[in-house]
Amino acid sequence: MQQINHRLLIAYDGTGYRGWQVQGTAPTIQLHLETVLSQLWQTDIRIHGSGRTDTGVHARGQVAHFLAPARFKSPQKLKEAMNALLPPTIRIRKVDHPSLHFHSRFSAKGKEYEYRITHHGEGSPFEINYAWQLKRQLNTKAMQEAAQELIGKHDFAAFASNPGYSRETTVRTIYNILFTSRKNLLTLRFTGSGFLYRMVRNLTGALVRVGDGRLQPTDIKRILKSASRSQAPPPAPAAGLYLNRVYYRQIKNK
Amino acid sequence: MQQINHRLLIAYDGTGYRGWQVQGTAPTIQLHLETVLSQLWQTDIRIHGSGRTDTGVHARGQVAHFLAPARFKSPQKLKEAMNALLPPTIRIRKVDHPSLHFHSRFSAKGKEYEYRITHHGEGSPFEINYAWQLKRQLNTKAMQEAAQELIGKHDFAAFASNPGYSRETTVRTIYNILFTSRKNLLTLRFTGSGFLYRMVRNLTGALVRVGDGRLQPTDIKRILKSASRSQAPPPAPAAGLYLNRVYYRQIKNK
Repeated sequence: MQQINHRLLIAYDGTGYRGWQVQGTAPTIQLHLETVLSQLWQTDIRIHGSGRTDTGVHARGQVAHFLAPARFKSPQKLKEAMNALLPPTIRIRKVDHPSLHFHSRFSAKGKEYEYRITHHGEGSPFEINYAWQLKRQLNTKAMQEAAQELIGKHDFAAFASNPGYSRETTVRTIYNILFTSRKNLLTLRFTGSGFLYRMVRNLTGALVRVGDGRLQPTDIKRILKSASRSQAPPPAPAAGLYLNRVYYRQIKNK
Repeated sequence: MQQINHRLLIAYDGTGYRGWQVQGTAPTIQLHLETVLSQLWQTDIRIHGSGRTDTGVHARGQVAHFLAPARFKSPQKLKEAMNALLPPTIRIRKVDHPSLHFHSRFSAKGKEYEYRITHHGEGSPFEINYAWQLKRQLNTKAMQEAAQELIGKHDFAAFASNPGYSRETTVRTIYNILFTSRKNLLTLRFTGSGFLYRMVRNLTGALVRVGDGRLQPTDIKRILKSASRSQAPPPAPAAGLYLNRVYYRQIKNK
């Protein structure tokens, strides 16, 4: 039977999950999706995501695809069938049918991640799993100054948790790091050509050290140039991180 | 030893709790607070809240008080000590020392509750415990029209889940019901002289029936006039409800 390509736009609350990728029978997002699809197609379906997310990391716009015979009258019907079977912490936002050439990971031109921080206060009881909660007030001006050092095409080896994990290049381009503040909530949005393993959490960890005064903005440049992970501060926790969007068209510098 | 009055401003995520009020050893907000205070004072401390909240109901501004000898150098120190011992889903936002005449419940002049609804979509994986998630799009204009019938001083017996629970009057004054919409999120803020048991959830349940077309705005007036709980639709679920604020000064009509 002729196969067609199915693309899923997925949102999930990562709190109760062991990340995206299937690991035996551990509760992962990919396992839940594949279980539901295999039920619907009555045969094993394997999906391919745009990339992994770690335990506790959230997504508003993860993308995955799979090839399978057409089985539903419309993309909307498949979306409804999946949402009826999935746990409410995993939602299919959209289904469509790109060409057979489309691949969630290899076709991606870039990604947007968001990192949420609450600072300066006793913390919100509602944000425990959704933000990094810091008591001290951060100097966001110094953080923005430091962030400027990261914009552009650089070797981000110092901010990759597993530099030896792959032989691929550690050069990436960050187009933009957008800061927004509302009361005690600070949000950083990173747009780039791609991100190395734990890169956004490592960058945020370093920027927060600038914000609390333990590092100077100029230290970020030094750490970047060192290309050595041991020079950089520890990563920010998983709970504050969101995969907002995967871009499949060339991103213009915002 | 001379006792002074301690007032606590408390925020909590009600998700994991069996409501405010102590019920044996069940995990309630009051039990957690009393356990921590009894540890700090090395003697049994009993607190008095402005009112109960049900299982799963949240608070941004619950108020409670207790009498005890002065023990901390400043209200800030007590706040920090409590927050260090409490679970992160219960936070003390402020401590102060009102006069001995102050009573969290009897001194209250009014309250503000918030009810959050998501509508028109597949639901957000992040809102399961924090909003009532509805698939259909609500007609918020009709809901606002219906809400006008509720403003003012009325006998709200039709919207009290336990009208026989107390011999006190079921007359209350609603000063305002403020609607705000942002994308799929609809927020209703109820300000009133006081609210009967489950009144906000019962009012919201009825307003949503107007929003989805099963009731007309004029039906709300009829239900109110009936003063009979059996005439009114079932309550909205607990997860969408927040106690935002307790007023101790006379509220002006907003």
